[in-house]
Amino acid sequence: MKAEIISIGTEILLGEIVNTNAQYIAKELVDLGIDVYHQSVVGDNEARLNEAYSVAFQRSDVIITTGGLGPTKDDLTKEVAAKFLNRKLFLHEESLKSIENYFNKRGLIVNEGNRKQAYFPEEAIILHNPNGTAPACIIEERNKKLILLPGPPREMVPLFENEVIPYLKKYQEKVFAFKVLNICGIGEGHMEEKIMDIVDNQTNPTVAPYAKSHGLTLRIAASGATKEEAEKLIVPLEKQIRDILGDNIYGEGDITLESTVAELLIKNKFTIATAESCTGGLLSGRLINYPGISSVFMEGVVTYSNNSKERLLGVKTETLDEYGAVSEQVAMEMAEGVAKLASTNIGISVTGVAGPDGGTKEKPVGLVYIGLYLNGNVTYKKLNLNGNRNRIRNMVTTSALDFLRREIITYNI
Amino acid sequence: MKAEIISIGTEILLGEIVNTNAQYIAKELVDLGIDVYHQSVVGDNEARLNEAYSVAFQRSDVIITTGGLGPTKDDLTKEVAAKFLNRKLFLHEESLKSIENYFNKRGLIVNEGNRKQAYFPEEAIILHNPNGTAPACIIEERNKKLILLPGPPREMVPLFENEVIPYLKKYQEKVFAFKVLNICGIGEGHMEEKIMDIVDNQTNPTVAPYAKSHGLTLRIAASGATKEEAEKLIVPLEKQIRDILGDNIYGEGDITLESTVAELLIKNKFTIATAESCTGGLLSGRLINYPGISSVFMEGVVTYSNNSKERLLGVKTETLDEYGAVSEQVAMEMAEGVAKLASTNIGISVTGVAGPDGGTKEKPVGLVYIGLYLNGNVTYKKLNLNGNRNRIRNMVTTSALDFLRREIITYNI
Repeated sequence: MKAEIISIGTEILLGEIVNTNAQYIAKELVDLGIDVYHQSVVGDNEARLNEAYSVAFQRSDVIITTGGLGPTKDDLTKEVAAKFLNRKLFLHEESLKSIENYFNKRGLIVNEGNRKQAYFPEEAIILHNPNGTAPACIIEERNKKLILLPGPPREMVPLFENEVIPYLKKYQEKVFAFKVLNICGIGEGHMEEKIMDIVDNQTNPTVAPYAKSHGLTLRIAASGATKEEAEKLIVPLEKQIRDILGDNIYGEGDITLESTVAELLIKNKFTIATAESCTGGLLSGRLINYPGISSVFMEGVVTYSNNSKERLLGVKTETLDEYGAVSEQVAMEMAEGVAKLASTNIGISVTGVAGPDGGTKEKPVGLVYIGLYLNGNVTYKKLNLNGNRNRIRNMVTTSALDFLRREIITYNI
Repeated sequence: MKAEIISIGTEILLGEIVNTNAQYIAKELVDLGIDVYHQSVVGDNEARLNEAYSVAFQRSDVIITTGGLGPTKDDLTKEVAAKFLNRKLFLHEESLKSIENYFNKRGLIVNEGNRKQAYFPEEAIILHNPNGTAPACIIEERNKKLILLPGPPREMVPLFENEVIPYLKKYQEKVFAFKVLNICGIGEGHMEEKIMDIVDNQTNPTVAPYAKSHGLTLRIAASGATKEEAEKLIVPLEKQIRDILGDNIYGEGDITLESTVAELLIKNKFTIATAESCTGGLLSGRLINYPGISSVFMEGVVTYSNNSKERLLGVKTETLDEYGAVSEQVAMEMAEGVAKLASTNIGISVTGVAGPDGGTKEKPVGLVYIGLYLNGNVTYKKLNLNGNRNRIRNMVTTSALDFLRREIITYNI
């Protein structure tokens, strides 16, 4: 089954908003085992929309549109579809009632445009939209399916999940299973090299690097006659990958690095305090992302000036004079200092040159030290990073969390 | 002049990455006064890419592609373009040299795939790519222009800015001028209501709300025979909008709220320290985004526990007992406490319930107090926010920066 996605709306065409709908739908279709060969964007224009339908009906079995179901004259998706398929529009009483309810509740009057939203091409399957006034619909024509969905993601996504997926599943030939492994502490190139043989020699399951907002991931996908069969195929390949990548895999699926670290801290009853210079609170901010962190996170300080490093953390003036603020010595004194200040098991510190200014030949922009105090032992990690200020600060924060994770794991061995 | 954008790559087609390139290019084309009527996405597939070129050359004057210029066999953009246009590929010696340099510097050997990147369709205008190994090119054919750009945004965007925009400007009929006003402290709906009359009655210049990563903006756009003529048209409309929105406008263009605040602090020689609870360092993190902040930012503390609020900031046990940690009283004691701790002019504090747990009937999730100490005076701001933990924490950070901005402005009057 071949599918294509048509995103309708001048605001996408002109770049006013980014087309996240197409990405979402494409990913879901892949997970359903449906091939996606085309995506396109057209404005709210009758001729070009008609052309898009015409091309899509020639080459695809499932055509999914988003947008253009609103109450204004610009919203033409349903009207052009009806014309293209030679169907009349009919008034769907139930939809009209639910639109009227929506407006009455808010003390508003239903106008002609809102009434328009309750009209559909004949024989369409109506999908109730609980999150807006634009109902969606599915039109079946010559073994092909045209699925019209609203544009706002908060309306479209629930409709897709609750109505479209169950509908499409009826036509599914294979069932898919997935596992996503989250990875850090290794570059993408290096990782690919290590697992290249596995990647190249697989057809089912397949394994592919997959970019997610929180970093590097590997996605294992398998298909089978049943979910269980597909899941079973994943097991040996996952084991092989875990043997190769070891501790570089920190979690699965939606698990973030900070939640992995937070759970390790809580499990070990290790209290923690942070002392940051160039990251300026990003490290404590990431840790505090985890809702249950309050039982172990005691305190964070942002000691941007030498004065506050000395006064709050007890970093020695001689150390600052001899090695400079960006040094392994200062990083370690900061880590120990903040652990003592807050009476915690762990103190973690960051000091570095985030740029764009302040770099020297000996201490260039991107040089960062992470200090770690853990129950009496102090250690450090040195980083040399590239990129702008923001990128460096984010990479340091991730490296610090990963360093902490590895040190806790090692401590327990 | 009609333009269209073809995004090439299986990773976009399958939803593995979101297509930000198309959005960026569409916006830039609009700014150049070039009409964008179509965007499409195709995979790395010869037949479908050929079909996409064929359709695009029928309906558009400028065709811009991104992706498929890499070193692997999957990268077909140039090869299919050459075939489609009946042109041979030639080796561009200069590009080959720069690719060899790139690899030699890194101690790597140039392979066949990398050499492939230096081949171009005959008569193509080569665009040097300083941020990667894939050079880009422009092919002129029958008054039409095919512009092939690499896929990674960090390579594509500089090429577009430095090479494609100057090239396309030669064909521009009208000149455009823009002004973006950055806004905070007012909701989008409320803002639109206030300026609705202006928005509806304008054709040149036009004014439109425009979503940017750092918040709400208003974009005024005018066209004219010259840049000066277009800019002149913006002036009276901008004045009208500024009269209505006043202090809600904090800056223009790429100016962020944190840089506005940082510059106010530096201009006034006001030193600052932060004390955060639920935001956990995000506020200090945003301030430290500003590279020159070190002259005024002295110290930040994340006092997540009551113990550290008392010990570090001198918040009174009685205050905590009587009013609780999330209260105006504690927020103000924290602000004053951190200013005293760090001997600064300003102390700013955040204490609140970010959720998902910890909310009560009296103090629900989303209740947040911001405390502000400024040269002896202490004040506070109360917020009731909706959303998940992350959204609440980000909104609080923005509100705190805006509160600080307004208090400094008021202090100087």
